[in-house]
Amino acid sequence: MYPKSIQKLIDLFSKFPTVGPRTASRFVFYLIKLPQEKFDELLNSITDLKKAIKTCSSCFNPFESLDDAELCPICKDNSRDKTLLCIVEKEIDLISIEKTKKYKGLYFILGGTINLKKSDKNIRIKELKQRIENNDFKEIIIATNPTTEGEATTLFIERELKSFNIKITRLGRGLPVGGELEYADEETLSSAFEGKK
Amino acid sequence: MYPKSIQKLIDLFSKFPTVGPRTASRFVFYLIKLPQEKFDELLNSITDLKKAIKTCSSCFNPFESLDDAELCPICKDNSRDKTLLCIVEKEIDLISIEKTKKYKGLYFILGGTINLKKSDKNIRIKELKQRIENNDFKEIIIATNPTTEGEATTLFIERELKSFNIKITRLGRGLPVGGELEYADEETLSSAFEGKK
Amino acid sequence: MYPKSIQKLIDLFSKFPTVGPRTASRFVFYLIKLPQEKFDELLNSITDLKKAIKTCSSCFNPFESLDDAELCPICKDNSRDKTLLCIVEKEIDLISIEKTKKYKGLYFILGGTINLKKSDKNIRIKELKQRIENNDFKEIIIATNPTTEGEATTLFIERELKSFNIKITRLGRGLPVGGELEYADEETLSSAFEGKK
Amino acid sequence: MYPKSIQKLIDLFSKFPTVGPRTASRFVFYLIKLPQEKFDELLNSITDLKKAIKTCSSCFNPFESLDDAELCPICKDNSRDKTLLCIVEKEIDLISIEKTKKYKGLYFILGGTINLKKSDKNIRIKELKQRIENNDFKEIIIATNPTTEGEATTLFIERELKSFNIKITRLGRGLPVGGELEYADEETLSSAFEGKK
Repeated sequence: MYPKSIQKLIDLFSKFPTVGPRTASRFVFYLIKLPQEKFDELLNSITDLKKAIKTCSSCFNPFESLDDAELCPICKDNSRDKTLLCIVEKEIDLISIEKTKKYKGLYFILGGTINLKKSDKNIRIKELKQRIENNDFKEIIIATNPTTEGEATTLFIERELKSFNIKITRLGRGLPVGGELEYADEETLSSAFEGKK
Repeated sequence: MYPKSIQKLIDLFSKFPTVGPRTASRFVFYLIKLPQEKFDELLNSITDLKKAIKTCSSCFNPFESLDDAELCPICKDNSRDKTLLCIVEKEIDLISIEKTKKYKGLYFILGGTINLKKSDKNIRIKELKQRIENNDFKEIIIATNPTTEGEATTLFIERELKSFNIKITRLGRGLPVGGELEYADEETLSSAFEGKK
Repeated sequence: MYPKSIQKLIDLFSKFPTVGPRTASRFVFYLIKLPQEKFDELLNSITDLKKAIKTCSSCFNPFESLDDAELCPICKDNSRDKTLLCIVEKEIDLISIEKTKKYKGLYFILGGTINLKKSDKNIRIKELKQRIENNDFKEIIIATNPTTEGEATTLFIERELKSFNIKITRLGRGLPVGGELEYADEETLSSAFEGKK
Repeated sequence: MYPKSIQKLIDLFSKFPTVGPRTASRFVFYLIKLPQEKFDELLNSITDLKKAIKTCSSCFNPFESLDDAELCPICKDNSRDKTLLCIVEKEIDLISIEKTKKYKGLYFILGGTINLKKSDKNIRIKELKQRIENNDFKEIIIATNPTTEGEATTLFIERELKSFNIKITRLGRGLPVGGELEYADEETLSSAFEGKK
C-alpha cells in the first residue's frame, strides 16, 4: 500500500522500543512533512550519536568521548566510592539511580536479564566477574528490577559471585510512594513490615 | 426516564464505592431479573449483616458477634503480642496485613485519613489516645498508605502521640514486586537504597 | 478470613455485573459503616423494587405498576407508531434509544444475545414471533449491538422472521461522534462511505 | 544528566508524534546498542526518504517518484473516477480509505484541521479551491474526522465551497463495529436510526 521507501522506514521504526506499525507510519509522515532544515538537524544528530558516544570499558555506560577516553565520567570521578558496585539491568536504570543522588559508588550495566529459556545467558556475566576480580569492592548491590526476570537474574548473579566472598545486598522492597496497602501483594506488604523503621 | 422505584435504587447504588449511575442502573436491572429465591437470599444477607456484625470496641474492626462479645477475635486472641499496635486507615487494610501472616500484634482502625481542608479531623484520634493510655504498648506502627493523605495523617498522629513517649515506626518504602527502577519516583528509589540488605 | 456473614454477602455482590470480590468487599464495608437510617432506606428500596416493578407482557420492559396494568407506559402510549417494532438486546438499550427522542415506535427486549455454543438460544424468540403474529407491524428494526454476538443474533432473528414478510432493517453503521478514520476498522469505514449523504 | 549528544537527540525524538522524553531516551539507547550495520541501514533509509518521496502537486499525497513525475499513482490512475473528490485531514486517512477498496475517486489532503483560535486557517483551502476550479467534479465528499475540530473544518469548507455549486456529502455516522448502544452518545445513536436500512 505504501511506497517502498516509506514501507522500509516504517519497518525499521517498528523495531524501536514501544513502537508498532501504526506509530511507525506516523513517524514517517512526520519526517516527510519536516522542513529540510529540521530534517537535516535530526539526521546529523543521529549520525553524530554513533561518533560521539562510546561505551565505558569498565561499567558499559554510554558516554560522550571527546578525547580517546575509555572510561565514563562516573568511573573516572575520584570522589565516588570505589568499594561499592551497583549492578543494574540497563542504562536507564543507572540514570534513575543517579537522579536520586543517594548512591555514591560505581556501576555495572548487565545489558538485560537472563533468559530462563535459553542456555545462552545473554548478559555481561563474564565481564562482571572480570571487573570484580580486578577491583577491590567491599559491597555489591544487585539493583535489578523486582520482576520475575529481574529476580531470576539476581539469583543467577548471586550464585556466580558466591566464590568472591564479597557482601552482596539487594534494594529494599516495600510500598512505593502513592501505593496502597489494599492493592499491595502479600510479598510487598511483608517486606514493608520487615523494613519498618 | 426510569420508573421512580428504579431511579431511587439507582441513586442509592450510585453512592456505593466505585459505582456511578451507569453501573448502578445495571445493578438494578440485574436485581429485577434475579429469580425471587436468589433475590430473597440477597435481601436476607443484607438484613443479617447489620444484625450479625458488631464493631470491636477496642480496635473498631467489624466482627461477627454470636454472643454479646465486645471484642473482635484478634483483640481477644491471647497468642497475639499485646505490646504492638498497628494503626491502619480502614478495615480492608487490616485484612491485607493479616493475609501476610507477618504481623502478630494488635490493630487500631482510624476510619480514614485527615482532611487537610477541614478543621474537623474526622478520624478516631480521641479513641486512639484513650486506647494507648489504657494499654501498655511498646511500639506503635503507623501503617497508613504512602499517599499524600496517608502521609499527612501519619505526621498528624506522630504529633498527637508524641507525649506518650512510645517508639513509633512506619512501614518500609521501596520498590514493590513487579516494579521497575525506570518508572520509580526518586523518593521510592531513595528509600529502596536506604533499605538495602 | 472474613466473618461468615460478611463473606456470604461478598459472594452475592460478586455476582453483580462488573463486580469482583475486591469491590464486593468494599460494598460490604460501606454497608457496615452506613448509619442505620440510610441502611434501612436502601433495604426498603430493594424490597420495594420487586413489589413495584412489573415486566411488560408485550415488550418485556420493566415498569412501575401502580394498578394491575400489564402493559408498560410505552406500549400503552397511543401517540406511538404501532406499525414500527424495534428489537433490542436489553433494557438499558431501550433507555438509550428513548433518550435520543428520534424513535416513536414500539420495542421488544430480547433478553440477551444468542449463545452460538449452546443449542438453547436463551432469547425471547418464541415471544417475539407471537408478538409479531398478533400485531400489524410494517417495519421491524433489529437494533442489536454491532458486536459479534449481536451480529449473530441479528442473522438468527432475520432467518426466524423471514416467513412474516415484513420489512426488516438494521441501524446504520459508521463513524461515531469523536471517532477517527485512522483508527476505524475497514468495515466501519466502508459503511461510512456507503452511508454518505 | 545525559551526555550532550544524547540529550540533543532525545529532544528531537520528543517532537515525534506520541513520543515523550522517556520514550525518546529509550529510542536513543536503542540506537546506541544497534549494530553499526543496522544503524547505517536506518540512517540510509531516513536519508533516502526525503530524496525518494515527493508530494503530489494535485492531492498532496506523498509518493515515490522514480522519474520526474508530479502526480501520485492515484491521481495518474485512469481507472479512477475523476468526478469524485474526497477531502481528508491527513495522509494516513487516505491510506485508511484506500484499504476499504470502496472508494474509487480522487483525494485531496487538507494537511490538518482548522484552528478556531487562530485567524490563519493553516489548511490547504486555497489549493483546494484551485483544484476544484481546474477540474470537473460532480461530488465532493468531506471525510474529516467526526471530532470537534473535524466538524468545524467541515463547516468551514462547506462555506468556502458553496459558490462552486457542486454536491457536497459527508461520511455516514453510526455505531462502529464492536460498538454498543448502551455506551453510544445520543448523536451517534440518532444518526444510526436515521441511517437504518
